[in-house]
Amino acid sequence: MRNKAGGWRLEAGDSELEAGASSASGAPRAGESGTVAALTERELIRRIQAQLPAPPPWMLVGIGDDAAVVEPERNRAEVFSVDALIEGVHFDRAFTPPRAIGHRALAANLSDLAAMGAAPRLALLSLALPATLSAEDFDALVGGVAALASAHRLHVAGGNLTRSPGPLVVDITVVGTVKRRQALKRSGARAGDDIYVTSFVGSAAAGLQMLRAQHHENSSSASTVSSVVERCTQRYLYPEPRIRMGLMLSRNRAATACMDLSDGLADAVRQVAEASGVGAIVDAALLPIDADARAWFEARGGDAAIEAITGGDDYELLAAVRPKLRNRLEAARSGVPLTRVGAFTADRALVLRHAGRDAPLPPGYSHFR
Amino acid sequence: MRNKAGGWRLEAGDSELEAGASSASGAPRAGESGTVAALTERELIRRIQAQLPAPPPWMLVGIGDDAAVVEPERNRAEVFSVDALIEGVHFDRAFTPPRAIGHRALAANLSDLAAMGAAPRLALLSLALPATLSAEDFDALVGGVAALASAHRLHVAGGNLTRSPGPLVVDITVVGTVKRRQALKRSGARAGDDIYVTSFVGSAAAGLQMLRAQHHENSSSASTVSSVVERCTQRYLYPEPRIRMGLMLSRNRAATACMDLSDGLADAVRQVAEASGVGAIVDAALLPIDADARAWFEARGGDAAIEAITGGDDYELLAAVRPKLRNRLEAARSGVPLTRVGAFTADRALVLRHAGRDAPLPPGYSHFR
Repeated sequence: MRNKAGGWRLEAGDSELEAGASSASGAPRAGESGTVAALTERELIRRIQAQLPAPPPWMLVGIGDDAAVVEPERNRAEVFSVDALIEGVHFDRAFTPPRAIGHRALAANLSDLAAMGAAPRLALLSLALPATLSAEDFDALVGGVAALASAHRLHVAGGNLTRSPGPLVVDITVVGTVKRRQALKRSGARAGDDIYVTSFVGSAAAGLQMLRAQHHENSSSASTVSSVVERCTQRYLYPEPRIRMGLMLSRNRAATACMDLSDGLADAVRQVAEASGVGAIVDAALLPIDADARAWFEARGGDAAIEAITGGDDYELLAAVRPKLRNRLEAARSGVPLTRVGAFTADRALVLRHAGRDAPLPPGYSHFR
Repeated sequence: MRNKAGGWRLEAGDSELEAGASSASGAPRAGESGTVAALTERELIRRIQAQLPAPPPWMLVGIGDDAAVVEPERNRAEVFSVDALIEGVHFDRAFTPPRAIGHRALAANLSDLAAMGAAPRLALLSLALPATLSAEDFDALVGGVAALASAHRLHVAGGNLTRSPGPLVVDITVVGTVKRRQALKRSGARAGDDIYVTSFVGSAAAGLQMLRAQHHENSSSASTVSSVVERCTQRYLYPEPRIRMGLMLSRNRAATACMDLSDGLADAVRQVAEASGVGAIVDAALLPIDADARAWFEARGGDAAIEAITGGDDYELLAAVRPKLRNRLEAARSGVPLTRVGAFTADRALVLRHAGRDAPLPPGYSHFR
């Protein structure tokens, strides 16, 4: 039976297609070890609500009606982003804990808000659940979303629950706000602007490789389960969206352009350069590559710089900054490391300066070489 | 390669998981008969943009950045809804044309806005595409969304494209606006209010059964391909969300409560009654069941009234109306048939008056009897 409960819409679908499933509303309640198929949609919603704080005063109609009704924030523009994580495409449940799946799904969206300089406000959570998903894993997934939402004062205003005949799908829409003229676009970079990135690049790509290796080798192997592995895998599993940094950059107008690195630094440099009508030189020697990630790549015969700039899943920010505004940039740092990795150029070429020679910037996070 | 192009975020996912796919940005362009896997994400976005009108002036940053930036409408509250249609759960591609899939996905969302009395404003379109989906079907699906969006002055502000390792998934978030005090809730019905429904009930359920029968019997059978079938199947495939009716009801305050019938009339009566703390009597003799649907149900030994109120996919509205405000209701009709089917009661029971006796209202759109 389909149920709507507020901003939440819960549905099972067409009756005949649905015949194989067992999420009947009259079904017995699952124990902690049961699957979501043994729970009614109302019970699943209650489990979500149990992990959410009380709705803020600007939620005029919350969970329990056809749709959520919200009072917009005065004198702000609104920023919208949607992102889906799909099992078998964006994550592998064999080595990605459900809490990390929830965290990463929301982090990907928050990172887009950060790249616009927006403050997070609300999210809508649309989940397609395989019947075999355990209630415990469901709670952990929702917990991963709820914890990150709470850390960034984002309110989950509603959503949609349905069963999936195949992969687990986590589709999240986020809404943030920004002052009209302070939205950070990709198109403002000018020749001579320096290219900065937050924190490290390549850690998530290394972390994903480590998780896969661990999984294939059997995770009991002491050689891969180490604190070194831990640091990179945590960056892959629990990326920290740079919301505060984005806000500071938009408020103090330090950056002429901004974009997140979800698809890798090479891709971000290319996108900003193309949108801004400029070229770029990235200096491999300047790249902030975590020592653990570098060691991992090099031990496998890889080129750490290439791996780091073409690997995805680093939810860091790239900012274009005029050299004379470097002080503003420093003021916006708020504790996050910032590294200059190159500059935008009048020449439209995209160059990687690496090991003493200039080569074309690789095509970014490409899966098809 | 993952690409973002404005409000659009396009991604393919982790490289290793992705290795089997062929949506390389360097891949050759597909002809009209090619699949989406042969197109780059940029090409897919261009095909979407080609079907969309120019962005309205309140779109401050549109397709081509990390997120969409929008100027909110003054003095209005915002209404948010999200809904996903999943192949194998909510539709069967064997007998649902791609244009209808796109139409239905957006209609389900618009129906939620209608039920709140909201005016549609923007949508975000998140698609997970099987590699085998043809480019032509992709265009038709997007065309179904675009045509309905345009009919309701809704702007597609951005979205997300990813490949799916399994089913086609169409996840849509819509945003509408409503005056603060005019949002139509489920909780306002009072004992004595009449229950009205728009247009017909059960037509979509009959249409779905007809499509399945056609498909199983082979569609060349002249006995089922008739104009009778056509009328019901069109109601299933291309439901018309009651946006104008919802707007009128919210503006003239004719309704004390409102909800859409996506999960069937029995479910809607139950939900509104529960939210409002009242009971209800539905009179089967009053139900507006299309003659074709009635004939279809009865020819198969079904009880037309039961089938019509428990079947889903009718995107009609239920409104609770005080008898003395009946004139306001008439004024809000705007050409859509409106039928009184019963009343809310002080007694909390939910009753179906049918064939001379009172029975409990069936449990709505249940797939698990």
